Amino acid sequence: MSTLVLPAELDNLAIELPSWAFGNSGTRFKVFGTPGTPRTVREKIADAATVHRLTGLAPSVALHIPWDTVDDYAALGSYAAEHGVRLGTINSNTFQDDDYKFGSLTHTDKTVRQKAIDHHLACIEIMNQTGSRDLKIWLADGTNYPGQGDIRNRQDRLAESLASIYQHIGPDQRMVLEYKFFEPAMYMTDVPDWGSAYAQVSALGERAMVCLDTGHHAPGTNIEFIVAQLLRLRKLGSFDFNSRFYADDDLIVGAADPFQLFRILYEVVRGGGLDAHSEVALMLDQCHNIEAKIPGQIRSVLNVQEMTARVLLIDTDALAVAQSSGDVLGANGIFMDAFYTDVRPALAQWRAERGLPTDPMAAFAASGYQDTINAERIGGTQSSWGA
Amino acid sequence: MSTLVLPAELDNLAIELPSWAFGNSGTRFKVFGTPGTPRTVREKIADAATVHRLTGLAPSVALHIPWDTVDDYAALGSYAAEHGVRLGTINSNTFQDDDYKFGSLTHTDKTVRQKAIDHHLACIEIMNQTGSRDLKIWLADGTNYPGQGDIRNRQDRLAESLASIYQHIGPDQRMVLEYKFFEPAMYMTDVPDWGSAYAQVSALGERAMVCLDTGHHAPGTNIEFIVAQLLRLRKLGSFDFNSRFYADDDLIVGAADPFQLFRILYEVVRGGGLDAHSEVALMLDQCHNIEAKIPGQIRSVLNVQEMTARVLLIDTDALAVAQSSGDVLGANGIFMDAFYTDVRPALAQWRAERGLPTDPMAAFAASGYQDTINAERIGGTQSSWGA
Amino acid sequence: MSTLVLPAELDNLAIELPSWAFGNSGTRFKVFGTPGTPRTVREKIADAATVHRLTGLAPSVALHIPWDTVDDYAALGSYAAEHGVRLGTINSNTFQDDDYKFGSLTHTDKTVRQKAIDHHLACIEIMNQTGSRDLKIWLADGTNYPGQGDIRNRQDRLAESLASIYQHIGPDQRMVLEYKFFEPAMYMTDVPDWGSAYAQVSALGERAMVCLDTGHHAPGTNIEFIVAQLLRLRKLGSFDFNSRFYADDDLIVGAADPFQLFRILYEVVRGGGLDAHSEVALMLDQCHNIEAKIPGQIRSVLNVQEMTARVLLIDTDALAVAQSSGDVLGANGIFMDAFYTDVRPALAQWRAERGLPTDPMAAFAASGYQDTINAERIGGTQSSWGA
Amino acid sequence: MSTLVLPAELDNLAIELPSWAFGNSGTRFKVFGTPGTPRTVREKIADAATVHRLTGLAPSVALHIPWDTVDDYAALGSYAAEHGVRLGTINSNTFQDDDYKFGSLTHTDKTVRQKAIDHHLACIEIMNQTGSRDLKIWLADGTNYPGQGDIRNRQDRLAESLASIYQHIGPDQRMVLEYKFFEPAMYMTDVPDWGSAYAQVSALGERAMVCLDTGHHAPGTNIEFIVAQLLRLRKLGSFDFNSRFYADDDLIVGAADPFQLFRILYEVVRGGGLDAHSEVALMLDQCHNIEAKIPGQIRSVLNVQEMTARVLLIDTDALAVAQSSGDVLGANGIFMDAFYTDVRPALAQWRAERGLPTDPMAAFAASGYQDTINAERIGGTQSSWGA
Repeated sequence: MSTLVLPAELDNLAIELPSWAFGNSGTRFKVFGTPGTPRTVREKIADAATVHRLTGLAPSVALHIPWDTVDDYAALGSYAAEHGVRLGTINSNTFQDDDYKFGSLTHTDKTVRQKAIDHHLACIEIMNQTGSRDLKIWLADGTNYPGQGDIRNRQDRLAESLASIYQHIGPDQRMVLEYKFFEPAMYMTDVPDWGSAYAQVSALGERAMVCLDTGHHAPGTNIEFIVAQLLRLRKLGSFDFNSRFYADDDLIVGAADPFQLFRILYEVVRGGGLDAHSEVALMLDQCHNIEAKIPGQIRSVLNVQEMTARVLLIDTDALAVAQSSGDVLGANGIFMDAFYTDVRPALAQWRAERGLPTDPMAAFAASGYQDTINAERIGGTQSSWGA
Repeated sequence: MSTLVLPAELDNLAIELPSWAFGNSGTRFKVFGTPGTPRTVREKIADAATVHRLTGLAPSVALHIPWDTVDDYAALGSYAAEHGVRLGTINSNTFQDDDYKFGSLTHTDKTVRQKAIDHHLACIEIMNQTGSRDLKIWLADGTNYPGQGDIRNRQDRLAESLASIYQHIGPDQRMVLEYKFFEPAMYMTDVPDWGSAYAQVSALGERAMVCLDTGHHAPGTNIEFIVAQLLRLRKLGSFDFNSRFYADDDLIVGAADPFQLFRILYEVVRGGGLDAHSEVALMLDQCHNIEAKIPGQIRSVLNVQEMTARVLLIDTDALAVAQSSGDVLGANGIFMDAFYTDVRPALAQWRAERGLPTDPMAAFAASGYQDTINAERIGGTQSSWGA
Repeated sequence: MSTLVLPAELDNLAIELPSWAFGNSGTRFKVFGTPGTPRTVREKIADAATVHRLTGLAPSVALHIPWDTVDDYAALGSYAAEHGVRLGTINSNTFQDDDYKFGSLTHTDKTVRQKAIDHHLACIEIMNQTGSRDLKIWLADGTNYPGQGDIRNRQDRLAESLASIYQHIGPDQRMVLEYKFFEPAMYMTDVPDWGSAYAQVSALGERAMVCLDTGHHAPGTNIEFIVAQLLRLRKLGSFDFNSRFYADDDLIVGAADPFQLFRILYEVVRGGGLDAHSEVALMLDQCHNIEAKIPGQIRSVLNVQEMTARVLLIDTDALAVAQSSGDVLGANGIFMDAFYTDVRPALAQWRAERGLPTDPMAAFAASGYQDTINAERIGGTQSSWGA
Repeated sequence: MSTLVLPAELDNLAIELPSWAFGNSGTRFKVFGTPGTPRTVREKIADAATVHRLTGLAPSVALHIPWDTVDDYAALGSYAAEHGVRLGTINSNTFQDDDYKFGSLTHTDKTVRQKAIDHHLACIEIMNQTGSRDLKIWLADGTNYPGQGDIRNRQDRLAESLASIYQHIGPDQRMVLEYKFFEPAMYMTDVPDWGSAYAQVSALGERAMVCLDTGHHAPGTNIEFIVAQLLRLRKLGSFDFNSRFYADDDLIVGAADPFQLFRILYEVVRGGGLDAHSEVALMLDQCHNIEAKIPGQIRSVLNVQEMTARVLLIDTDALAVAQSSGDVLGANGIFMDAFYTDVRPALAQWRAERGLPTDPMAAFAASGYQDTINAERIGGTQSSWGA
């Protein structure tokens, strides 16, 4: 039995799962299919609920429109509730319609811009039905060649389009704008960095905030600095967690650079992101191209929890003293002490105390769930980004 | 009329076109279809031949197997000849079969490795029929997560598999091995850098060489150094030209960093790559996701030609003197003088003298070719990476 | 005689020279000394004036305090005026005093922060004497190890310190805050990106603006986007021009990626940065570690002028049409047409018309100036970053 | 008491310390002095011996010529032996003499090349006196501007120069050639990557090998792959350990990305690098610019030891099974299990069993050593890279 005492804040941790993590995904070279992949939104929700049932960490599921379009969102919400989860963030999509080949909210053609705006209004309408708080906007807008577009005009049109959408955001709703360094645009993206997202949402109002996807930065970027800065500016609305070695690899969070995740979560905690009424929503945004999807999601939320636990063990008083006294190695040592502490036994105990399986990965493997869905989900079209 | 004298070596310039540049391509987010896209290999060849007819620069077309599989390669060769081009490099594909999810030539399962080897032997058989000289191997093999594979064993298996293939390479044939920094593998690729490709092909023999794709390097890599080094080691077999701002963007060659293309071509010329019997094959490997495809290819070969012309204008004697005397600004100035020279009028004249249109881009636009194929190529399935 | 007509806006181009470009500089491994290197501020100004005399492009000289501290700034200003130039931006230095080992404006110790603030007040006092408009703040503040400092508190202290300085900025003066990705801090810099500089200066007022050093970004960053964005936000105060392949290499502007310089200057012009009353100050910030220093500066201002001339040749009407119609290759082609135009003969003529030498590099070489200073500047201590 | 059993191979771990880590170092902006910094080679050795006495991990000290030049190397060796350590690798220096401004072993001027060769022969002579096995060559050679040097000729001259040196390497000696991506050269370095170092040393013979400095790679480079590849090719001679966030930051090993260090050491162990008669020499190459130097070195060797211990805990049999069966998450999980295990208590016990202090960092702090040297080392010139 672990003698490590885990702070109570750990109970505040909740991580939203993306419905699309349970569908197929891949690279431009190949999307591999897998047995048991959901064919419907409900099947995705069932899988997500399984993750929550085993970990107690993932009480909500984000939807992507149109991939998760249904006729009756109230019924879908009830279905989710029956499975122990709720519907969360609504993610818009303005990158898979032929009209958006040269942009959506930034397009030179007013008709196309209006179509993209209308799509977001439809998303808000869905939010009204699902009770979702957040509309997340990730734009694929950008250009591939210098000279192709007018950078400045595109930015102005973006501001205009966002304002049109924002005025429909309800008093209890929020718009979160995601930035991305590159891809699918290969020369210029219209919201490439946190500064641009910040400038755009600051012009809108209090309920417009920035979404930070951990995979959307230039090589070498100090992401925890951005976390600290956005929290300071009160504009960090949400996270898309994943990890990367090169580009937007969308690997399991914590898989590529666990210490970076530790540093990021330290700033989250440091800036109040784990407080009871924090404005920071934590979400995964990952692709399980070659690994098992449900275990991939379980592993991910456990990674976030384990790392948060390590962060909560930092002796912040001693750290402050070392920082103030210029004791570089001392301060770093206090930081690393927490990182190198093995919190897994204490977390197993934490789970046991809450009626959860001590080892969720093993519990899933032993549950027979995967065999069941492999057998049941025959026929139909496996869900993927394409549909 | 330009008074600039273009050196005769410029006539040695020939750039192979990839058949797949004429089909649809895209990102993992979306592949946009376009009117007039070829449905068959013959239609791709017809498009490629159009590029050659207008520029005089692209006498051959690379095929990708299985995308370009046909029943009768002799007939295909005749078809190409009738259109004024010939069949070139054969590119293998071991990344789109479900069996290759965890590797092909490096797979832990001997059966899968053998399947991948057999695919290459089938490619060699096609080469025998098409009269192609080069078998190009680009492997998507790699892993997404640390620990997923044994790096060392994979390398050993790769060596074994390549040796199995190499022994079937005919005396007038070559194997060229392409390296790539990342993608689709996101943690480790089995041939990530020129050093690995060089080590592998050196173990095989003289007819195994390295293929350098200009988009397959880490950020900041000095590619012209690699060109110079591989030429020095007599192992630079071929180029895949394209350009990039971020990852393997596959943009039009010279579009992202024209000066880099200048420096690369300088080392090609410096190392004998443009000599009459050079062993360096120049090829494009690009995606025209959002721009017009045939003009995209025309623009590309013109870019290579224009930059080669600039390189050939460098006053190499003066440069050598400046280099030896430590005259940094002088040497750089001689280099830049050539880069900043406008060779386009002289090249227009060069074309006129050879019965080519002085402005191939305008000539294509005026030719009505695009309208014709837009009208004719109705129905069927547009070619893309998927087929 | 060139028939190219250079637009009149070209006459608005003025590039400030940094006094330190004429002193010795180097890497952490070695600073090479060179004959003729200035020993005093006046000698630096004489060299800068030589650049201006030969190019007509560099009417002012930036000073760095304390490297350029003198007793009598009025006398220094007169000296400059006699040589045909004026004193420009005052650059502060809070990175070479032992007290700043762990920070200056962000230091945990109020005494150190006050010392750093006082240094800036002293700089403002110098500005009052020299008639300089801009106080440029580049901070070396940052940390080398995770945990070493509290990112959030440091940012808050920075805001406080900047506010203390800003209130002393006169009505005709400005504060420009420079950001830098890394170096000398190796884990976290306190103003790492344009977003942080923007957030900080926005909190201060209208006369606080951002300084963009072209070498201070993450690999792959689209700098012209930042230029466009900051101009849109009316917060682009000044440029530090230089170029880089890897880190903050401080090479001659345009030497590493001429096309990038073209794209940057296009956004400067596009956003009004070359207008008569533009708020954007252009300055060099370079190190001539191994190349001749005065010719290095001449080459640099000519590079900026040549590239500006190319930018001014862009057919913006045609470009707008191509951009609006989704003609990717057409728009890019119009852009590249200007880039590939050889403006050098027209600029030689431009210079001749203004009584300047047609070839400033050759004119300097022929002038005997270097021989003279080599002979005269014997003894004393050559200027460098250290003094 | 820890119940974790540490494998016996851990006793094979030995890490050479660089003498210069105990002297002052800094960036191009500032070198901070510190109390107690050694003034002589003997004082550096005394400090290094202190690290070894407290950790049992650092039995040898690398020297840098000319920084560590003495009259009597035999006496120096005896001095080291009396302090419980021995003299190790000899590092040459061809970057701080004015003659090397444009290159050393690659210089166009034969006289300069010969001077650089002779310096290495002098180093070999020192090796004969110190009994050192390895001559380490890190070249600062390179160019800052395109066109400045002839890349190909420089490579040929390098080959010639290295051959001249190699023929003097004794039968029990080795030459290890270090590669570096950039700095101090900013456009092209003459040995930029492992491939170039490999090609050069392969041409020399068995006793020429590659030195891998963990900070000398392009952003995103998979270093453990290179480790595996070089071990496979039997050309990995030695390591220079340190860590980095951006460029060649020379931070404490394991400080920036502990998981990367884990992956690197896994490949070292996997490839036999920790075997009794391994050819891989482990060394630190770090700068302690702002942190305490002796504790910085203690922390570093402990980091390597702790991470090696984690690596040795990997269940390699289970890993092989998971790898072969395509169990991505399982294999990764086995890998991560070891990484997340807290080995520190077991290592404290390991130290206690060997008569070492259980907490070397605390033991140093309590020892009074720093106070003693602060008091004793007054006057003289503190050692640094400059002398």
